[in-house]
Amino acid sequence: MATAGTAAKNAALLEAASRLTASSENLIDVNAADMDQARQEGITGPLLDRLELTPERIDGMAAGLTKVAALADPIGEVTEGWTFPNGIKASRVRVPLGVVAVIYEARPNVTADAAALCLKSGNASLLRGSSYALRSNLAIGAILRDGLEAAGLPADGVQVLEDTSREGARALMRAKAWVDLLVPRGGPNLLAAIEADATVPVVIDGAGNCHVYVDATADLEMAAAIVVNAKTSRPGVCNAAEKVIVHREVADEFVPKVAKLLADAGVELRGDAASQQLASVIKPADEDDWPTEYLDLIMAIRVVPNLEEAIAHINRYGTGHTEAIVTSDLNAADRFVARTDSAVVMVNASTRFTDGEEFGFGGEIGISTQKLHVRGPMGLRALTSERYVLRGDGQIR
Amino acid sequence: MATAGTAAKNAALLEAASRLTASSENLIDVNAADMDQARQEGITGPLLDRLELTPERIDGMAAGLTKVAALADPIGEVTEGWTFPNGIKASRVRVPLGVVAVIYEARPNVTADAAALCLKSGNASLLRGSSYALRSNLAIGAILRDGLEAAGLPADGVQVLEDTSREGARALMRAKAWVDLLVPRGGPNLLAAIEADATVPVVIDGAGNCHVYVDATADLEMAAAIVVNAKTSRPGVCNAAEKVIVHREVADEFVPKVAKLLADAGVELRGDAASQQLASVIKPADEDDWPTEYLDLIMAIRVVPNLEEAIAHINRYGTGHTEAIVTSDLNAADRFVARTDSAVVMVNASTRFTDGEEFGFGGEIGISTQKLHVRGPMGLRALTSERYVLRGDGQIR
Repeated sequence: MATAGTAAKNAALLEAASRLTASSENLIDVNAADMDQARQEGITGPLLDRLELTPERIDGMAAGLTKVAALADPIGEVTEGWTFPNGIKASRVRVPLGVVAVIYEARPNVTADAAALCLKSGNASLLRGSSYALRSNLAIGAILRDGLEAAGLPADGVQVLEDTSREGARALMRAKAWVDLLVPRGGPNLLAAIEADATVPVVIDGAGNCHVYVDATADLEMAAAIVVNAKTSRPGVCNAAEKVIVHREVADEFVPKVAKLLADAGVELRGDAASQQLASVIKPADEDDWPTEYLDLIMAIRVVPNLEEAIAHINRYGTGHTEAIVTSDLNAADRFVARTDSAVVMVNASTRFTDGEEFGFGGEIGISTQKLHVRGPMGLRALTSERYVLRGDGQIR
Repeated sequence: MATAGTAAKNAALLEAASRLTASSENLIDVNAADMDQARQEGITGPLLDRLELTPERIDGMAAGLTKVAALADPIGEVTEGWTFPNGIKASRVRVPLGVVAVIYEARPNVTADAAALCLKSGNASLLRGSSYALRSNLAIGAILRDGLEAAGLPADGVQVLEDTSREGARALMRAKAWVDLLVPRGGPNLLAAIEADATVPVVIDGAGNCHVYVDATADLEMAAAIVVNAKTSRPGVCNAAEKVIVHREVADEFVPKVAKLLADAGVELRGDAASQQLASVIKPADEDDWPTEYLDLIMAIRVVPNLEEAIAHINRYGTGHTEAIVTSDLNAADRFVARTDSAVVMVNASTRFTDGEEFGFGGEIGISTQKLHVRGPMGLRALTSERYVLRGDGQIR
């Protein structure tokens, strides 16, 4: 896979895309068996919905593969080049990581998305989805493998793991000889297992306890629009805002205003004593609220005396994902950017923009909340490393 | 430390450099106590030599600090910038990692070198050296702390850990709340402890089982000079070559030639059956030889039928550090570069060039043999991460 050319990789993706669309009926049948079993095991609501394949969703997966085929190939990019005083020509060259494993939940479309990004970046992929989606995942994986073979590449460049047991996941987390990168995409249980067991290199796609700080000089209309969008446009995703921190000087006006908008949008509000005094709809927040990623229509609000307290709160309780400030004060914006330590920091924009598509990466395999290797949305480049190539004519030291 | 300006960081380094030189006599006295105790505990030879501080070595440390002060500050570098279709201005900005811990052996100069690179890159450093060097390390650390204070920066930006016990090292390896990166510099025991115990992010400064492959079309004079240099110029370091792989077509001429040169230089040679038939000085190698980093005047030699076998041998036994090919065949060079998977790959040059100074990094905190985050010599940039800053004017999604 590492030495596969761009044309072959793109041909494999496009072939798989057309086979996905052509196999739509069969995929829906296979998926129906997964859905039946999931229902029998008591799965309902959003979980069941995410498991379902429809003609539209299959077309969406195919479109995703086509889109990845159209992305620039990151492999072989020379990111730096220079000449040593002794004449050796040095270059830093982007290469694949090798084998990328992904552990994910019961969403069959992730199988196609993750396989496509790994394939385009020259990596073999080991895809370990949920047992609920196993039939669907294997069927999608088979189509990607067919695409690889049609393009003259090894089918084993994409492998959907049939073992969806916990023991199997644990073995994957410890397969140091085989796995160059593991991306765990899941909730607190998965992350706890990773912390306890993983010995392979990991990039954590972690929790997003994202904050919006409304500064003393904020345009309060803008601030309210950003807070409402950041919380309600898709409350179950990691880039949704979970907390609003409000400067004391604008709290009297802003807290009642945003509380009404959020309550009207069905958001349960929890707050500190100061915010509760300003809007009766706000229930008391306790210490457990501040570090919590709700992933739901719940939001907590706190009033602070100054920017420094806002930054201190965020650095104490944040998860290193995304923080936003709404302000018209340049100095406050700069201090907020310099002193909050998250993968993405925003001035006057919704936290919802932390997303590989929005960033122009053409997709993402996750959003890193760690500092090593890569931070924020992980596109193709996050699945590569940079090595050095030195060319001389007999230099010794 | 993260928000310290370049001028203040440089002032701290230069102040520490001048204080190091001025404290030379005192440092030598303190070091004498370390040396006495080490001798009593039976330390001799190269280990004792590395522990010793002399006026020249202290001047060397001071010169190292001055050199790091002269390096460009990596912090604040904007590595990419673009505008979203909705007008949000995005940039990727280089920031410090936070707290960098280094575990190292009984070489007091590493205290100054590591502290300087961490300081210049805006990181706080936790330096855990050997118990043998504790007095020397604390004295050097105190000078760096004085330098920080003189420049108006927090002295705790550099901390030499007084606890040099194994339990202390283990605690450091598990201090997830405090350590953003741990660089372990040491032998197999340390690396095994890291593998067993570390939960903090680690970049492995691992073994260098480096290979030189002499191709069928190699200039054999050049090949011999490279092999001898790569093995003998400093046999105890990780970029020294440990293995020579020779194409069968040139083995009759090259093996006796290089065997004589190496034997004359005091190198013990071990080899496969084919190479033993070509030079009586070559003793039998066994399976344990091929994966071993000797770090000594020992080298193993093997004859292979073609380039593919050489690459397969290297990918099987190598440690991902440095591999070199000597060839005049462009196609062979390209295939070797594309198919060996090490941090540094060289064409017609000695493996000894894998070094932060040689690369122009102005020093190194180690040489990474892992793929995640950074590969090869680790300069200032390896001690940073890149985060995203998005500036909008009210964009919502």
